[in-house]
Amino acid sequence: MKKNRLMSPGPTPVPEEVLLRAASPIIHHRTPQFRSILKGVNAKLKKVFDTRNPVLIFGSSGTGAMEAGVVNFLSAGDRAIVINGGKFGGRFSEICRGYNVDPIEYNVEWGEAADPDVLKRLLKENPGVKAVFGTLCETSTGVVNDIRAIGEAVSGTGALLVIDAISGLGADEFHPDAWGVDVVVGGSQKGLMTPPGLSFLSISPRAEEMLKRSGLPKYYFDAGSALRSYDSDDTPWTPSISLIAGLDSALGMILDEGMKTVIARHAHMARATREAVREMGLDLFAKAPSNAVTAVKVPEDIDGEALLKELRDGQGITVAGGQGAYKGKIFRIGHLGNMDDYDIICVLAGLEMALCRAGFELELGRGVARAEEVFTQLPEKCGRAI
Amino acid sequence: MKKNRLMSPGPTPVPEEVLLRAASPIIHHRTPQFRSILKGVNAKLKKVFDTRNPVLIFGSSGTGAMEAGVVNFLSAGDRAIVINGGKFGGRFSEICRGYNVDPIEYNVEWGEAADPDVLKRLLKENPGVKAVFGTLCETSTGVVNDIRAIGEAVSGTGALLVIDAISGLGADEFHPDAWGVDVVVGGSQKGLMTPPGLSFLSISPRAEEMLKRSGLPKYYFDAGSALRSYDSDDTPWTPSISLIAGLDSALGMILDEGMKTVIARHAHMARATREAVREMGLDLFAKAPSNAVTAVKVPEDIDGEALLKELRDGQGITVAGGQGAYKGKIFRIGHLGNMDDYDIICVLAGLEMALCRAGFELELGRGVARAEEVFTQLPEKCGRAI
Repeated sequence: MKKNRLMSPGPTPVPEEVLLRAASPIIHHRTPQFRSILKGVNAKLKKVFDTRNPVLIFGSSGTGAMEAGVVNFLSAGDRAIVINGGKFGGRFSEICRGYNVDPIEYNVEWGEAADPDVLKRLLKENPGVKAVFGTLCETSTGVVNDIRAIGEAVSGTGALLVIDAISGLGADEFHPDAWGVDVVVGGSQKGLMTPPGLSFLSISPRAEEMLKRSGLPKYYFDAGSALRSYDSDDTPWTPSISLIAGLDSALGMILDEGMKTVIARHAHMARATREAVREMGLDLFAKAPSNAVTAVKVPEDIDGEALLKELRDGQGITVAGGQGAYKGKIFRIGHLGNMDDYDIICVLAGLEMALCRAGFELELGRGVARAEEVFTQLPEKCGRAI
Repeated sequence: MKKNRLMSPGPTPVPEEVLLRAASPIIHHRTPQFRSILKGVNAKLKKVFDTRNPVLIFGSSGTGAMEAGVVNFLSAGDRAIVINGGKFGGRFSEICRGYNVDPIEYNVEWGEAADPDVLKRLLKENPGVKAVFGTLCETSTGVVNDIRAIGEAVSGTGALLVIDAISGLGADEFHPDAWGVDVVVGGSQKGLMTPPGLSFLSISPRAEEMLKRSGLPKYYFDAGSALRSYDSDDTPWTPSISLIAGLDSALGMILDEGMKTVIARHAHMARATREAVREMGLDLFAKAPSNAVTAVKVPEDIDGEALLKELRDGQGITVAGGQGAYKGKIFRIGHLGNMDDYDIICVLAGLEMALCRAGFELELGRGVARAEEVFTQLPEKCGRAI
């Protein structure tokens, strides 16, 4: 027997309760029965997103909601600052260019967090910028950005602040209303413990004003249509009924655990992972590591792709490789969503054994021991990862 | 005990086998394991769509693929003919207008099928039209259009033929390659017996040529990105993994039954439904009825919305009401996807009892008897509904 253990930063493993809820018989969406489910989901989403704003649900991957975050608020010829510190920051630039929005890119070196002072300078040098696009957790590098400081930098400039929180939500601390974030982009398949196929877009009153003046073309991702349906717990198009039912259960589990506890659990798993891999003699990639994912440099003389293949096909443990220029050079361990301390123990043990087989010199069990030390301490208070 | 029976033209009931397959543990999509599932799904989709062309899968409702059918092939200022005979035909016009494509509308009266001669005339009067948008089964009216004749009318004009087959596929006969259809739009939640959340877009070589010259903005629904990933059984964005696994099982069931048999089963269920409701003294709405759905006029002096509410909340049988101007004036019985003769018997029996309770004069059991007569005849050969 070889069990499969999905330890990637998305898609993440889905609890059996959620899988089975999503396997409920299909009910029609234009009924009081479905509207009652959607009403509950809408209310729970606000709590998990920590926002008073409506959180729209689209049937799409997270990329769809990123596109919605551009096309609903801007017009052709507008300029926007894009904080690009990895594959997903860069995606905002691609979407902007596709819609004739001019992205002023703040290129952050992969592995580093955005510097709010640089952003402030860019905003001063480029008056009239309509929006700033940023990322909470940049999944490709494992970096968490300081969104509170980014929000302060943007505050008062008149620019809309749009944050991709797809992989960070439910793992890294995030308070969009308090931090001045207008639009939050989310996805189902990360911290929300639901299969991929749903994406989210929260919309502040200021964003709603910009929506009215936006001239970019849109139809499926038109937040205006979605908002008009939202108030009656409806959707403009056929919703992904089964995934929304699953999401209802997943959000219930998250709120039962409590958002503070959920964030603290992620902080603790992340810290144990970081300390353990360092104990194995490996180097971390991210200078400001997220609670959602730990990016680790592949040691010299080790074939990174072969290592991950052995872990996945030999041991049944799936972690993620590097993306773009970092393919084969880093790997990324997800500790996100439906995971606990023993999932971390397993991936660390698997990593030690795979490294050992690959000829890397290390003492078996030392990384796991370090994680046990972390886990036997009291969990730290909800907050930024150490 | 009151069981729920979903008898709408979409979403349709999903077989338990498919629901449970979609509840399988999540596997990562960038793995040989998932690519192997996707390879099988891609091959099966071609068989079910009866096309040699690639059938792209999007994570969205059918409306998303309708939008993809516009934005991938046209440019701003292009003119297109839209055959608008109901809510879904009209949606193509809305999408065109949203993207500055000028729709020349062929307005077909609701309940009637498009006349290929009128289309021929429109094409002659409007040279340079870049595309014709049409609908196989117009779900809002229950009409099936003669796509073979529409294909003949368009043939040789240089216009691209895009057909929304969302609700007709797997119910009405449809042979896009033989009939000159370039682009087929599909959805998961109708004849394909899968939960809502997946949509499809097949692309002929001619459509692929137009894709290269299209100037409309797009990102999530960019068929170019999707085609580049398609050849390696991959997707540009995170796919809806669980729904695709479910689809794999559903397509397997459809192909095991055989497409000819599947279409014949739908034709037979549709004929029994039509003859039974007429036997009850009701009138049909569609002049050219689809195998997917039967639209029935609500008798005078009967409250159509109350009738459907009693069926749904009192009897657990969900049929669809009228849309747009026909709300309360017609209702629509779906016989689509995972349904057999006894599902038809139940909805007919429920309808007879609900009509009787509502004060409509009819002899209980006569409609059901007529359906039994149809069902005891040999199934007609695969083909257009009688």
